[in-house]
Amino acid sequence: MFASVLALLACMGNARAEDGYALWMRYAPLEPTLAAHYRTRLGQVVAPDQTATQRAARDELERGLGGLLGSDPQAPGTAAIGPALVLGTPQSSALIAPLRAQLQSLGEEGYLLKRTRVGERDVLLVAASRDIGVLYGVFHLLRLLQTGARIDALDVRQSPRLRLRVLNHWDNLDGYVERGYAGQSLWDWQTLPEWRDPRYTDYARANASVGINGTVLNNVNANAQSLAPQYLDKAATLADLFRPYGIRVYLSTRFNAPIELGGLDTADPLDPGVQRWWRDKAAEIYARIPDFGGFLVKANSEGQPGPQDYGRSHADGASLLADALAPHGGVVMWRAFVYAHDVPADRATQAYSEFVGLDGAFRPNVVLQVKNGPIDFQPREPFHPLFGAMPRTPLMMEVQITKEYLGFATHLVYLGPLYEEVLRADTRARGKGSTVAQALAGMAGVANIGTDRTWSGSHFDQANWYAFGRLAWDPRQSAGDIAADWAALTFSADPGVVQPIVGMMMASREAAVNYMTPLGLHHLMARGHHHGPGPWVDGGPRADWTSVYYHRADHSGIGFDRTAGGSNAVAQYSPDVAEQYGDLARVPAPLLLWFHHVPWDHRMASGRTLWDELVARYSQGVRQVQGMQCTWAGLQGRVDAQRHAQVAAFLRIQLREAQWWRDASVAYFQSVSGRPLPAGEAAPPHPLAWYQALQFPSAPGDGR
Amino acid sequence: MFASVLALLACMGNARAEDGYALWMRYAPLEPTLAAHYRTRLGQVVAPDQTATQRAARDELERGLGGLLGSDPQAPGTAAIGPALVLGTPQSSALIAPLRAQLQSLGEEGYLLKRTRVGERDVLLVAASRDIGVLYGVFHLLRLLQTGARIDALDVRQSPRLRLRVLNHWDNLDGYVERGYAGQSLWDWQTLPEWRDPRYTDYARANASVGINGTVLNNVNANAQSLAPQYLDKAATLADLFRPYGIRVYLSTRFNAPIELGGLDTADPLDPGVQRWWRDKAAEIYARIPDFGGFLVKANSEGQPGPQDYGRSHADGASLLADALAPHGGVVMWRAFVYAHDVPADRATQAYSEFVGLDGAFRPNVVLQVKNGPIDFQPREPFHPLFGAMPRTPLMMEVQITKEYLGFATHLVYLGPLYEEVLRADTRARGKGSTVAQALAGMAGVANIGTDRTWSGSHFDQANWYAFGRLAWDPRQSAGDIAADWAALTFSADPGVVQPIVGMMMASREAAVNYMTPLGLHHLMARGHHHGPGPWVDGGPRADWTSVYYHRADHSGIGFDRTAGGSNAVAQYSPDVAEQYGDLARVPAPLLLWFHHVPWDHRMASGRTLWDELVARYSQGVRQVQGMQCTWAGLQGRVDAQRHAQVAAFLRIQLREAQWWRDASVAYFQSVSGRPLPAGEAAPPHPLAWYQALQFPSAPGDGR
Repeated sequence: MFASVLALLACMGNARAEDGYALWMRYAPLEPTLAAHYRTRLGQVVAPDQTATQRAARDELERGLGGLLGSDPQAPGTAAIGPALVLGTPQSSALIAPLRAQLQSLGEEGYLLKRTRVGERDVLLVAASRDIGVLYGVFHLLRLLQTGARIDALDVRQSPRLRLRVLNHWDNLDGYVERGYAGQSLWDWQTLPEWRDPRYTDYARANASVGINGTVLNNVNANAQSLAPQYLDKAATLADLFRPYGIRVYLSTRFNAPIELGGLDTADPLDPGVQRWWRDKAAEIYARIPDFGGFLVKANSEGQPGPQDYGRSHADGASLLADALAPHGGVVMWRAFVYAHDVPADRATQAYSEFVGLDGAFRPNVVLQVKNGPIDFQPREPFHPLFGAMPRTPLMMEVQITKEYLGFATHLVYLGPLYEEVLRADTRARGKGSTVAQALAGMAGVANIGTDRTWSGSHFDQANWYAFGRLAWDPRQSAGDIAADWAALTFSADPGVVQPIVGMMMASREAAVNYMTPLGLHHLMARGHHHGPGPWVDGGPRADWTSVYYHRADHSGIGFDRTAGGSNAVAQYSPDVAEQYGDLARVPAPLLLWFHHVPWDHRMASGRTLWDELVARYSQGVRQVQGMQCTWAGLQGRVDAQRHAQVAAFLRIQLREAQWWRDASVAYFQSVSGRPLPAGEAAPPHPLAWYQALQFPSAPGDGR
Repeated sequence: MFASVLALLACMGNARAEDGYALWMRYAPLEPTLAAHYRTRLGQVVAPDQTATQRAARDELERGLGGLLGSDPQAPGTAAIGPALVLGTPQSSALIAPLRAQLQSLGEEGYLLKRTRVGERDVLLVAASRDIGVLYGVFHLLRLLQTGARIDALDVRQSPRLRLRVLNHWDNLDGYVERGYAGQSLWDWQTLPEWRDPRYTDYARANASVGINGTVLNNVNANAQSLAPQYLDKAATLADLFRPYGIRVYLSTRFNAPIELGGLDTADPLDPGVQRWWRDKAAEIYARIPDFGGFLVKANSEGQPGPQDYGRSHADGASLLADALAPHGGVVMWRAFVYAHDVPADRATQAYSEFVGLDGAFRPNVVLQVKNGPIDFQPREPFHPLFGAMPRTPLMMEVQITKEYLGFATHLVYLGPLYEEVLRADTRARGKGSTVAQALAGMAGVANIGTDRTWSGSHFDQANWYAFGRLAWDPRQSAGDIAADWAALTFSADPGVVQPIVGMMMASREAAVNYMTPLGLHHLMARGHHHGPGPWVDGGPRADWTSVYYHRADHSGIGFDRTAGGSNAVAQYSPDVAEQYGDLARVPAPLLLWFHHVPWDHRMASGRTLWDELVARYSQGVRQVQGMQCTWAGLQGRVDAQRHAQVAAFLRIQLREAQWWRDASVAYFQSVSGRPLPAGEAAPPHPLAWYQALQFPSAPGDGR
């Protein structure tokens, strides 16, 4: 009896399971020596609290220092002695006022972090021209502390390189998120405007921490109801909550809202009644949201209405909305992702053909939003030929943060290298070194955010939100450095944790390219939901919604001939670029089959034939996922148990699906090429028909 | 300078915002004296840990006592001295073995909590015949401690009164929840079976804590894919996680799955191939889930396929599935919610007409699942006439926990009184005192559970999940007592908190009846999504999907004549009941217009005319919501800030919508009655057409 006596209540430690909600703002206690070191140097905090943004900065500092340094209060005590951390602008702080000119050079959103002496006192200044810069500076300082940086000689000057740093939420009014893999929409329209979920503020904090300054609340496939008064009241509440964090609210608009919502019989942009309707609607919005950002528009694309329905141009359509917004300071973000009702010879050429001639025809408050590549958010695409080709038109680059074509939320694919690759691509538009980044006025990221407790559907997908913000702030930053920051903030600043995680992250995008679409292949995902392989997809309503349209594989070879001998899409690039891409000998191997139809026995740089190389790449992708699993297994015990278990489970899913991709793709392409598998390559375990028969009608995120 | 020095890091207390995730299992620290009192009496814990359920009981006890009593470990020390808390069954504990006979009388799920002496020792026994009973007993004990009960002379014997206590999740495979107002489905099919979200276990804990012992994972409007091998693997993982908590997994089945999934050309229940298909499918399921509970079936109802498609009866259909499950011990829960393709004279009569003649025709492992009332989960209905009318057929009562017709998640409506009212209704089937509860083998509750952080979409909707479980365990319990327990567990055991909350809860259902459908009115909600008032709804595909079909208001009067002079639905009740309901002088006022078409100037017991009474009830409903607001405002500071704020915001929504219901309904019925508003009643602020024009196409939870 009493044999199995329990040491009850032992081990009831304080360790909280980490569920990922805190993102990269965990503010976990620092090692005591380091905490003491910082405490000594930071001393008293002197911060204004007269405005909402000032209070946000102060609150974040309290939260951050409280977590990092422990909860012992620094006695406010006897005023002006000892070190101090001083926050402010020339307006809010007499101490900072002398820096006015220096701060002005950093712009409206820039900031200065500087350790200096004022009289007898060591002070650390977080200074900016405007409150929002101070808030950004606070987040920067907290990042430094979290990563254990030295602050003795701190002297940081930061300004954003891009003006518009905007999330695009493809969220429907019923809470469904198109191409969303992270739960439902964050915006609970049913309980707005009354209920101000604290999560809205946490969303704003996360965005401000990486410099994101705008959010489009609703899907580009827009519902006109978003502009109805009841929804504007709700959006205004969100705008109120986001404003202290420097985030402007934008709305996607349906071009024929004057008909659907206003009861007019036309949405013709040259119709005076239509113009009046939009002017009135803009005034109605600004009455509720004085700093409303503006409209995002998807027009004449994939069935959406637009100016071409009335024989007008995209410029006419954009001007209609731009003129309505101009008196209030709003902008129109007009999407260049359009394609005609008729299936084109090469869809990759359409946006350029449609828009390049309109350079200079847009109002000053119109920004053209161009996807990173000419097709649609593939694992790899060349940069979009419009970048550099419209010097008189401000351009935003639209990227997906959500991973519609990259394994949804369960595949670990860090997108930093993808964004970096495009941002650094040389358009040659104004000679060598004309990067895509230089052609940009902003970046738009299709959000991967939802009600999932992790926000992004997985722990590692948080990194893509983070990297988007950091790169939009400064596109010259390196994806690797950003990954290192993120890993340190999110998991542990221990280099023994950071380095292997960064290794996984930096290799992960190439792994996905390998097991999905190696060597420039693209758009081979299953139809509709894009879950898993579908290289055999053919037929249906449009040829350019099939896989065979893109890979063009036959018994002789594979690839889309976009050279002068083919669709001549290369001609949309600058001559130097066109020459390189168009030359089979010079085209980079990762883009080979994007631009060329190549015989199966084409000899690759590796010495292998194209066929052997293709199969090898597919297999390599699977091995790379196995490698990530090994690395992650080695981190057991160094990462909290809950997050470790989830990532490990997701990697098991990823491995299963990478193998599926490899096997199905090899089975399919072998059926086309008729070639034997290279030595050492395992045959797919099922016949091709087995893979083709798999159906996933309930895969998440499909458009509806 | 340094004027606004901040006492940084002060007030960084340990108080965590309460977000509702912990449900009624918060285990918040008890007041120190009480904690010390319990600590002394509980002493050492002696608990087996050889089975998964034993470990679940021990883990819950650790979690509970750790939270309630603090984290000081009770030294396991020197064995058998001092008081002890002893858990076990006759098999697992030698101390409990002598109680075998006594425990057997409590049944397979019953338990005993008893304070006694064993030799020199004070012991508190948590004893049962089976491990699951011990787990239930642990939850009972923790409830007593949380509410500050005395345990010195504890002697509790509990057994469930109903065998089947089952949640029905109307969850689609894509994560959408039909009639769900609490986020997406908990089941993340995309990450199952690999990822075992800790939330699945918390779900099981919550259910076990109130005695729920089954869960139907998928929508009764079923997708045949739920029976495909890939989904069975996922369901099996959930079953593995739920099993330690005594919860069996069930699946809704689509009757023509043999066609859609199996490729057969018929689903005729008498076809040997169909019978073989279901036998094989059952074997396939039980190979994965040895304790699989069985099937829930919605057949020949609202467009679902069923046996009548082949000229067979419901009994034939149920037998098909029952025979497939019988060798494995599974049951078929066959829904009686059917109505014919042809619009009937009175839909309230259909289920009875269809099924009463089949009494005795079902296999022993079939349970007929009957909604609480004859229409569809209205704010108030009379009990369903099938209860008591099928003595040879086991019946389950199906109630909605989700509030499809009761204001979604934002209206505070405690459903305990609704359930209690039906359970206690006297069918007179076997003489006076033949309650509905006595006619039941089980209860099915349509779950209000989703990924929302609160689980149920609001803090107060958690109470409906809780009350369902408690009443399914023992339908004789009182809704008020259950509310008091829930409030104490969820907010605070302080009577100054519990009493006002119970007051709000107990009046809340009548408030909703008043502002939506007073005096026996029913089914007046807006079309489709049922959000808000729609008493004018008319036309469309079926008369019985309109409001005018149900209220039958005209210039002379209002109400559905279900007496012998009308549809004669009263005849489906026992003679005594039928006589009462059919008699205008004796029918209870709350059911008046359910059974009678009554002139507007009919004199009510209040002395008012029916018209005046109707308007008064609508207004009273609004005032009752205002009353709840006042009560809640008085609890500020006594309930944690985050939950207080959310409830207050939701009450503002409820008040706005109650007023909308009142105004729209009064405007509409006035347009029909042509009568002036009673003195003192405010005219609706808008004309009727304004209310009729309101559209809510994105209201949540609509069927799709």
